[in-house]
Amino acid sequence: MRNIDPVEDLIALLARLPGYGRRSARRAVLRMLMDPQRQMLPLADALRNAAEAVLPCDVCGNLDTRSPCHICDDPQRMQGLICVVEGVADLWALERAQAHRGSYHVLGGTLSALAGIGPEDLRIQPLLARIEAGGVEEIIIALPVTVDGATTAHVLMDRLGDTGVPVTRLAQGVPIGGALDVLDDGTLAAALRARRPA
Amino acid sequence: MRNIDPVEDLIALLARLPGYGRRSARRAVLRMLMDPQRQMLPLADALRNAAEAVLPCDVCGNLDTRSPCHICDDPQRMQGLICVVEGVADLWALERAQAHRGSYHVLGGTLSALAGIGPEDLRIQPLLARIEAGGVEEIIIALPVTVDGATTAHVLMDRLGDTGVPVTRLAQGVPIGGALDVLDDGTLAAALRARRPA
Ligand SMILES: [Zn+2]
Ligand SMILES: [Zn+2]
Repeated sequence: MRNIDPVEDLIALLARLPGYGRRSARRAVLRMLMDPQRQMLPLADALRNAAEAVLPCDVCGNLDTRSPCHICDDPQRMQGLICVVEGVADLWALERAQAHRGSYHVLGGTLSALAGIGPEDLRIQPLLARIEAGGVEEIIIALPVTVDGATTAHVLMDRLGDTGVPVTRLAQGVPIGGALDVLDDGTLAAALRARRPA
Repeated sequence: MRNIDPVEDLIALLARLPGYGRRSARRAVLRMLMDPQRQMLPLADALRNAAEAVLPCDVCGNLDTRSPCHICDDPQRMQGLICVVEGVADLWALERAQAHRGSYHVLGGTLSALAGIGPEDLRIQPLLARIEAGGVEEIIIALPVTVDGATTAHVLMDRLGDTGVPVTRLAQGVPIGGALDVLDDGTLAAALRARRPA
């Protein structure tokens, strides 16, 4: 079959979306082509808008349309209560659960010997800088309960030990091996409330 | 949580893709935001390109970057051998299988009392016009083996009866209830080879 290039290009790109594949992508493209004005151009615009408008927060690493992000910039939130998460997905999960009234710090990953991710690849130094700047009252470690997450928490507590800032972590309640962003809101909120000294 | 509008807009649109949902869409957006220049803008461009470049073929109803499409316009293909399919997905499936050396006619659906789709909603009249124009040697009905597909085939054969053009349909081999575009290429090719008089 001679390929219809613009369609094949689109299918190839859509098929790369997580949890998608060529068959789903083909089905999506055919459906969108029934009404391209209403089904394709708005998605194209939304992608462009998001790509142009969204940037990482210089303070916490969250993604927002401004930096500092709306969480770091919110005087109603306890800016001295910093919840450390692996990635933005987990930050968003905690926000959806309305589980945390403080601010965040996105590490940008967890340590992994296998993937060659060392402490210098994570945003640990910026977290220490935030503490040095003053006003930090508590660090809540909300990393996944996996081998890599536990290793990362251990290294993090080690680095934080010298600062004198109390460090807590999420209560057990986060299932072993579980990623934060697939938990239901209630479990997340309960684990946060029952947090204990690290 | 205060929504980040460009991100929420994008998640909402992606979540509408067939077989996708909010969770998958959120995951996709977060991953794309890691590298928007390479992961979002190309997809935005591909959507726009496809929306602008692709149009239905005036002859057969296929989607292509030109009309007549590259199949209707191919002198190597037996233009007098027309395979009638429900939709473009089925046409593409037959092309992927390299199962058919003739041309196509996309009906644009099947009759459905439930969905209120009558014969006038399908591209039956344009098919009769193609036959009237001359040169058509055989019509192969390749509709899904469902109640609606069988009803449609019946009505179609009725209309085609007066034309004197031989009408065949795909051999059994297409599983009952099966959509054409999920069949493997071999099954499709075998069913086409073993086609019999309707
Ligand atoms: Zn921030
Ligand atoms: Zn055509």
